[in-house]
Amino acid sequence: MISPGFTGGTLDRADRLRHDSEAFAAALGDWRARLLKLENFEPELDSEGRLAWTTIADAPEGSELLLLGLDGDRPCFAALTPGMLPPAGRPMRMFAMLEQFAPGEAATYAAARSLLDWHTRHRFCANCGTATNIFRAGWARSCPNCHAEHFPRVDPVVIMIAEHDGRALLGRQHGWPQGRYSALAGFLEPGESIEEAVAREIMEEAGVRVSDVRYIASQPWPFPSSLMIACVGMAEDERITLDTHELEDAIWVSREVVRAVLAGEPGPFLPPPPYAIAFTLLTEWANG
Amino acid sequence: MISPGFTGGTLDRADRLRHDSEAFAAALGDWRARLLKLENFEPELDSEGRLAWTTIADAPEGSELLLLGLDGDRPCFAALTPGMLPPAGRPMRMFAMLEQFAPGEAATYAAARSLLDWHTRHRFCANCGTATNIFRAGWARSCPNCHAEHFPRVDPVVIMIAEHDGRALLGRQHGWPQGRYSALAGFLEPGESIEEAVAREIMEEAGVRVSDVRYIASQPWPFPSSLMIACVGMAEDERITLDTHELEDAIWVSREVVRAVLAGEPGPFLPPPPYAIAFTLLTEWANG
Ligand SMILES: [Zn+2]
Ligand SMILES: [Zn+2]
Repeated sequence: MISPGFTGGTLDRADRLRHDSEAFAAALGDWRARLLKLENFEPELDSEGRLAWTTIADAPEGSELLLLGLDGDRPCFAALTPGMLPPAGRPMRMFAMLEQFAPGEAATYAAARSLLDWHTRHRFCANCGTATNIFRAGWARSCPNCHAEHFPRVDPVVIMIAEHDGRALLGRQHGWPQGRYSALAGFLEPGESIEEAVAREIMEEAGVRVSDVRYIASQPWPFPSSLMIACVGMAEDERITLDTHELEDAIWVSREVVRAVLAGEPGPFLPPPPYAIAFTLLTEWANG
Repeated sequence: MISPGFTGGTLDRADRLRHDSEAFAAALGDWRARLLKLENFEPELDSEGRLAWTTIADAPEGSELLLLGLDGDRPCFAALTPGMLPPAGRPMRMFAMLEQFAPGEAATYAAARSLLDWHTRHRFCANCGTATNIFRAGWARSCPNCHAEHFPRVDPVVIMIAEHDGRALLGRQHGWPQGRYSALAGFLEPGESIEEAVAREIMEEAGVRVSDVRYIASQPWPFPSSLMIACVGMAEDERITLDTHELEDAIWVSREVVRAVLAGEPGPFLPPPPYAIAFTLLTEWANG
């Protein structure tokens, strides 16, 4: 299996340091400690696709430091700076950068980006409305009023193709670049399994009934904090009933055609970018 | 594969009604509409394990109605009542009830319970602290001040065994009933895949390194709102280094022993209850 994008990180998350305030303080005071360089949530990459770091002395006034983990013995932090706001809209510049990441570096960035984004949009207690404080080395917030503890969100998303007679169902959302088709996708909801969410989403969006859902692969997707879960479901037939609010079009494509498109040949659709798990999913499916 | 607990729900979630306020109003006014009977978050079951329902006229004064979905044409609701609070502590009485549910009924209950629990603990905007309002037929809240939209949480949890030489690693948490051992488990974090979370958790809790993680099954777990993702990882060796904060003990158990214990024979550990995905996981592993 090809490794999905944003996987392969090498930092030790060092959970023990999150529960030991002395060890955390020691990590902050460690002369080897380093700070991820970010500007408006975007990293700086060197010519080999490696993330740029600086010393924690460079953190802006009033920053709070989140412990990303340990690189060997070296503590690695990201800075939550006052007034920091997640960038609005689709991060197109960021997407263009994703193919340049060295293996594993995108995973470190994904964790940092999701964590920072969560803090910037969760400064208040959802239970009582009071401003909360960071604890657990940056991996939680607690409420001084009602004492609720809040943890970073990870939102599971199912992304899948239906399969029938050697062909895969691909969909196209409104506003996508011309020619782009990909796997269908949607958020998993409370009270359903992965397999049930896959069947519900394909039914809602394309009117296709599937069973025998099988899991293929997963990846974190840090825009802002999804867990992408890629699956294949076996369709009863190829009749499509499109939900035109969700999809502009949907097509069935044979294994041979998917294989050719992924190999760079022209075809009825443009392939997903290699860092997207739709690429992993289609590659695994096309190769059998 | 045996169906994991809390799966097999038959309600149509009717996503379209969440985006169509006229259709939602019509559902509320439908004479066939029914309301899930709950008391302190607990359902009422008949002698065949079916959920009890009443009419929406029975909703307490000031309730807001959440659309669970359609049973055929019949709209099904749960009532979020003023001052409703999730029960504190482990829901032991509820656990005792779980084996009595008819197939599929636990799934309907799981969705209702997770959704109600989320509303009771997320009445305020995490972004600005303002009290929020329900929208989308009960599946979201919006902030009248900053206009942020908030959706119910689903927290992915990995639950897994390590496998080595035909034996499975089981662990025991502090305070569990005597003799109970089960799969290890932990929350998946931002920036990691399912496979990476599995490897990290087994390493953190038992000091065992695994690779070749394979997915087995998933289930919703409504206490309060987890997505349980069951996996098996192949261990390099059987040396255990216990994190005694997380686990009281860990043992390696052969396939034959697991099979015998699941069949009700006495053995070195007590089996998990059938509604827990650890039961599905151990059953699949022992038979496969
Ligand atoms: Zn609070
Ligand atoms: Zn707000």
